[in-house]
Amino acid sequence: MNLKYNKFSESELKKIQTQANYARSAILKMTTLAKSGHPGGSMSSVDFLFVLYNLININPKKPEWENRDRVIISNGHISPAVYATLGLMDFFKLDDAISQFRLAGSIFEGHVEPDVPGVEWASGNLGQGLSAGCGFALACKQKKIENNIFVIMGDGEQQKGQLSEARRFAVKYHLNNITAFCDYNQLQICGDINEIMPQNVIENYVSDGWDVIEIDGHDFNEIQNAIFDAVHNDAPTLILANTVMGKGVSFMENQEKYHGAPLSEEELELALKELGLIDDLEKYKELRNNFKPSNLTQEDCSINYTDFDLNIGKPILYKEKTDNRSAWGNAVADLAIRNLKLVISNSFAVFDCDLQGSVKTTKFAEIAPDSFYECGIMEHHTATMAGAMSKNGIQVFFADFGVFGVDETYNQHRLNDINKTNLKVITTHVGLDVGEDGKTHQCIDYVGVMKNLYNFRIIIPADPNQTDRIIRYISRKYGNYLVSMGRSKLDIIKTKEGKIFFDENYKFNYGKADKLRDGNDAALFVMGTLTSKAVEIANKLAAENINLQVWNISCPLKINEKILKEAAETGSIFTYEDHNVNTGLGNCIADKMMEMGLSSKFYKFGVENYAVSGKSEVLFRYYKLDVESMIGRIKKKLR
Amino acid sequence: MNLKYNKFSESELKKIQTQANYARSAILKMTTLAKSGHPGGSMSSVDFLFVLYNLININPKKPEWENRDRVIISNGHISPAVYATLGLMDFFKLDDAISQFRLAGSIFEGHVEPDVPGVEWASGNLGQGLSAGCGFALACKQKKIENNIFVIMGDGEQQKGQLSEARRFAVKYHLNNITAFCDYNQLQICGDINEIMPQNVIENYVSDGWDVIEIDGHDFNEIQNAIFDAVHNDAPTLILANTVMGKGVSFMENQEKYHGAPLSEEELELALKELGLIDDLEKYKELRNNFKPSNLTQEDCSINYTDFDLNIGKPILYKEKTDNRSAWGNAVADLAIRNLKLVISNSFAVFDCDLQGSVKTTKFAEIAPDSFYECGIMEHHTATMAGAMSKNGIQVFFADFGVFGVDETYNQHRLNDINKTNLKVITTHVGLDVGEDGKTHQCIDYVGVMKNLYNFRIIIPADPNQTDRIIRYISRKYGNYLVSMGRSKLDIIKTKEGKIFFDENYKFNYGKADKLRDGNDAALFVMGTLTSKAVEIANKLAAENINLQVWNISCPLKINEKILKEAAETGSIFTYEDHNVNTGLGNCIADKMMEMGLSSKFYKFGVENYAVSGKSEVLFRYYKLDVESMIGRIKKKLR
Repeated sequence: MNLKYNKFSESELKKIQTQANYARSAILKMTTLAKSGHPGGSMSSVDFLFVLYNLININPKKPEWENRDRVIISNGHISPAVYATLGLMDFFKLDDAISQFRLAGSIFEGHVEPDVPGVEWASGNLGQGLSAGCGFALACKQKKIENNIFVIMGDGEQQKGQLSEARRFAVKYHLNNITAFCDYNQLQICGDINEIMPQNVIENYVSDGWDVIEIDGHDFNEIQNAIFDAVHNDAPTLILANTVMGKGVSFMENQEKYHGAPLSEEELELALKELGLIDDLEKYKELRNNFKPSNLTQEDCSINYTDFDLNIGKPILYKEKTDNRSAWGNAVADLAIRNLKLVISNSFAVFDCDLQGSVKTTKFAEIAPDSFYECGIMEHHTATMAGAMSKNGIQVFFADFGVFGVDETYNQHRLNDINKTNLKVITTHVGLDVGEDGKTHQCIDYVGVMKNLYNFRIIIPADPNQTDRIIRYISRKYGNYLVSMGRSKLDIIKTKEGKIFFDENYKFNYGKADKLRDGNDAALFVMGTLTSKAVEIANKLAAENINLQVWNISCPLKINEKILKEAAETGSIFTYEDHNVNTGLGNCIADKMMEMGLSSKFYKFGVENYAVSGKSEVLFRYYKLDVESMIGRIKKKLR
Repeated sequence: MNLKYNKFSESELKKIQTQANYARSAILKMTTLAKSGHPGGSMSSVDFLFVLYNLININPKKPEWENRDRVIISNGHISPAVYATLGLMDFFKLDDAISQFRLAGSIFEGHVEPDVPGVEWASGNLGQGLSAGCGFALACKQKKIENNIFVIMGDGEQQKGQLSEARRFAVKYHLNNITAFCDYNQLQICGDINEIMPQNVIENYVSDGWDVIEIDGHDFNEIQNAIFDAVHNDAPTLILANTVMGKGVSFMENQEKYHGAPLSEEELELALKELGLIDDLEKYKELRNNFKPSNLTQEDCSINYTDFDLNIGKPILYKEKTDNRSAWGNAVADLAIRNLKLVISNSFAVFDCDLQGSVKTTKFAEIAPDSFYECGIMEHHTATMAGAMSKNGIQVFFADFGVFGVDETYNQHRLNDINKTNLKVITTHVGLDVGEDGKTHQCIDYVGVMKNLYNFRIIIPADPNQTDRIIRYISRKYGNYLVSMGRSKLDIIKTKEGKIFFDENYKFNYGKADKLRDGNDAALFVMGTLTSKAVEIANKLAAENINLQVWNISCPLKINEKILKEAAETGSIFTYEDHNVNTGLGNCIADKMMEMGLSSKFYKFGVENYAVSGKSEVLFRYYKLDVESMIGRIKKKLR
C-alpha cells in the first residue's frame, strides 16, 4: 500500500481537491442525465472514496489481480461516486459512466454491479456489505494473501441487525484485514438519522470489540491517516467519517431530498459554476443519445466455468438404512481427506451455524479445522459471507437446517445469486420429516422458495448413496447449488431385483432423473425422503397388478422432457412429496407439462398446510402420505 | 401486579422451591417420554419462569383477558418449562402436557404454539421474540392498556442481529412496558457461548440504551426484585439471569448435551430420586399410549373472523394516469379520516421502513401520527413486530418495497403466518417496473415466494381504481394479505366502450377475476402493472381481427375454475407478467389447469432472468414484454 503516514503536501492536496471536485461534477452530471440516482451520499462519500482508491493496491489494468486490496460497497446507491472515482483512475472511460448511467444495456447500473471493473460485489439491499467484506477477508486470510479489505457503508444502514452479526464474526476470527467506513452524513431517505432511528453507532461497534476512528470525512489528511492507523491496527476498525450530504454544492448541503433525487439541468448549471467547472452537459447528452447497448438479450443463466480440479475419490456405498445428512457429512469429510493439501491450503470452506452435530459437519471440522468456520446463530451474516467468500475461487459449503439456510436467508441468497457466487448450500431437516420440532422447524418450501433464484440449482437426494454421489459431483462444480435432505434414516433404494440402485457405477449429472420402477398404469413422481416409500408403494401395487412407473426427480428445476412424455403416456400422473403441495415437485411438473402441451390425469400429493409436531412416521400417516394411505389414494384415483 | 419488593418469607420460599422442583420433574418426564426435546434450557429457566408467571397479572380462567400481562417465549424450545409452569398454574392439566408432549395431534408441540392456553406467540426460529414483544407492547400502549410485556430469551440467540433492531425500536418508542429475560446459562447447542461466538451481551444492550439488571437466575428473591425494578424502570430493561444448564440434577448441570437431548429412563429414575420425587413414569406412559388426537384432519387454512367494523367510505375514482402506490396512500389516508376516532384510539397502525415518500404513507402519518411508526432500515424487526401487534385486534399495515417487505422478511412472515396474524403487507416497487434501481431492487418473486405461506392471500391490483377498492376491502378483513404494486403511473383500465372499468360500482372480493375484453381466438391472463398493456394488445389485435379474451387476475392464488374453462375453450392461453416467469401468474395457472385436467396450448411470457437497470418502458422493450413485442410474440404462436 502506497501509504504515507504524514500530511499531504500542499501540491498533493491541491491535486486531490481538483480531482475530487471533478468527480463531484461527474456525479451530478450522470444523475441529472439519468433523471434519477443518489447524488447526496455520493457527494458526501467521494472524498474518502477518492483517497482510499488512490492509496490502495489495485490496478486498473488488472482489476482482478488476485493479491489486490478489495473495496466492498455496501451502500450500492452511491454508485455515481464509485463510477466517478474508478473512471478517474482509468478502470474504464469516465465519459462512458457519465453518459450511460442507468441506461438499459450499460454496465453502469443504478446500484453497483461487479460487471464494472473495480467493483467487487453487487449491492443495493443495505446491511449486507460488512458480511460480504468478512467473506472476502476470510478468503484472503485462508489463501494467505496479505492485503486489506475495505467496506464502505452508509449511516442509515447501520440500523440493520446483520451488521452486528458481521462485527462479532470479524472479532471472533480476528479479521484485522478489514477496515470499514461509515459515511456519517446523518441523513437517510426520510430525514435525520437521529430522528428516524436514534442509534449509538460508535458504542455499537465498541460493544462488539471493534476499534473506531472518528474523522472529518472531507479532510484528506485525516482520511489518509485514519486508513493508515486502521490497516495497522490489530482489531477490525471502523472509520466513522463525519461528512456532509451534498458536500461541495452549497444548496445541496445537508438537504435530505438529494439522497435520492438529481439536480435539474438549471440547478446543475449553478452547481458546476460553484465547482468552478464548465457545463459540458450537451456533450454527454449526445453520447447518451448515441449509446447502443452491447447486449440486447437476457443474461445467460448457465455459467460455464471449468470444473474444480479436485479428487472426488471413490463413492461410499451404503447398504443399511442411513440418513442422508450423515452421507453428506461422510462425503465432505472424505473429500477433505482425499484433498488434504488443497483443502487445508485454500480450496474448501465449510460454514456452520451452531448445528454441527445435526448437520453432520463435525468430521470435516476435525479433519480440516482451518477450513471450518463456526458462525453461531447468525444465519443472515453467514449466508452473505459464505457467498462472498465463494467468489474467490473457493468451494464454500454452508450447512444449516432448511428453515435457516433457506427461509431465513432467502434474500441473502438472492443477492449471492445476483453476484454469481459459487455457493453450495446444504440444508438438512427439510420436509415433514423434521418431525417433533414442529411447524416452525419444518422447512416445506425449500423448492418453492429457492426456485425463484435463476442461477441456483436444486438437488434433492433420494437416499444416502445418491447423496454421496451428489456431494462428490457438486464439489467439482462452479455455481450455486442447494442440496436438501430430511432428518431420518432412509431405506436404501434398490432395483426390482434387490440390487442397490445408486451403486458404484451410478453417475449423477444435474438434471438426471431415475426410473426406479417401470409400469404402464400410472406414473409416480417423487423426491427426497419419500422416495423409498414410493418404491414400496409400487412394489405393493404391483402385487395387485397395478404397475406404477416410479421416477425419482432429484432435480425438480430441470426435468427431462422425454420422461415426462413417457409418464404422460400412462394416462395418470401422481406427484408425491413432503413439501408444500402448491410449490414443490408437483408444481414444477405441472408447469413443465403445460408448457410442453402434455395432458394426462394429474394428482398432487403433498403437504397442504402447516403441520403439527410429532414423529415423522406418525406425521406421514396423519397427513395421508404414508405407504398405506397413498396406496388407497392412488387406487381411488385410478378407479 | 402482585409484586412485593421484599424477601419471600421462608415458608413462601419453601413452597416455590417445592413447586419449581416439581416443574423440573415434569420437564424431565415429558422429554424422556417423547424421547426428544430440550431439557437443559428448560431446567435453567424454570426458576425465573415460575416466579414470573406467578407474579404477573394473568388468569388461567381467562387466558385471553385483554388487560393481562403478556409473556413472549422467544426461545420456543424451552416449551417443557413453559408447559410445566402453566400446567402447575392450572392453565391446563399438567398431566396432559407431560403425557402428550410432542405427540401429533396434541397442542403440546415441540416448540411453543399459541394453541396452548397462556402461550402468546409461536416461536422456534430464534431471535424474533424481542420484536414480537415490541409488537405486543406497542399494541398495549396504543390501546392504553397499562400492563407489562415480558420476553424470555436464550443466550445463544443473542447472536441474532434482529435483536439489535428490536432494542433500538424499543428505545425510540419508549417501550418502558417491556422487560426481557436472558437465560444466561452460557451453553448453546455446540458448546460454550464464549467459544462458539464471543459476545458482550450486557454492553450490546447498554449501547442501544437499555438498562441491564444482572441476577442469580436461581435465587427467587433476586428474581422477584429484578422484576420489580424492571417494571418500574422507565427504560426497557434486560434481566440477565445467570443460570446453570440442567440446574437441579447434578449430572445434568453444565452439560451442553442436554440442550437438545432427553434423559434415558434409567437416568430419569436417578434424577427424580435426586429431586426427591417419586418415579411415576409408568402412569404417564399409559396416558401417552391412550392419547387420542382430537383432530385428525389438516388444519383449516381459512380463518373466518368477523369483519372489522370500519367505515370504508366511498371509492376515489381516478380518471387520469396514476400510480397504484399513490392510490394505496390516498385510500389509507381516506380511511384514517373517515375513522378518525377509531384510528387514533387503537384500531389501525401503519409501519414504515424509511421509505414514506416512496411507499406513500406520508399522508396517513400526518393524519394519524400516533398510529404511524417509522422503523428505520430494520425490516426484519418491523415485519415481526407488525405481525405480533396485529394479533391484538389491530389492523396493521406494513408498507415497504417488495425486496424488503417480501424477500428480506420472508421468514418473519412465515412465522407470522404460523401465528395466524392479521397483517396487511403492502409492497410497492415490484416487477421490472422498478426500473433504474436495477436487479437488487426489482422484486420479481413476490408471488413465487409468498405463495409458500398457506394463509397469506396475495392481491395484485391492475390500476389505481382497483387499488383503491382493494385497500378498502382488506381494511375490514381479518387475516394476512399481501398487496403488491409497481412504481409507475398506469393507464386507467377501461371497457371496450371507453368507460372506467373499476368504477364506483365495482365490488372487489378475494378471488375475483375480471374479464377486460372478450374474444375467442386466445385468452390472455395478466396481473398488475402490465394489465393496461394487455388491454392495448387486445385492442390492437382486434383491429387485425384477432380477438383475445383478456383476464385480469388480481388474486393469482385463487383462480376461478369457470374462467379457466372458458379460457381453455379458446384453445390458446397466454400469461403475461413482469414477474419471474417460473413462479408467478403463469405458474399458478399452469398448476391449476393441470389439476383440473384442462388442456390447451399454453405460453408464459415473463421475466426470464435478473434484469438490468433502465427505465421501465425501456426494460419492457428490452425483454420483449412491451405491447409491440407481445403482439408479435402472440401472433407468432397463433400462426
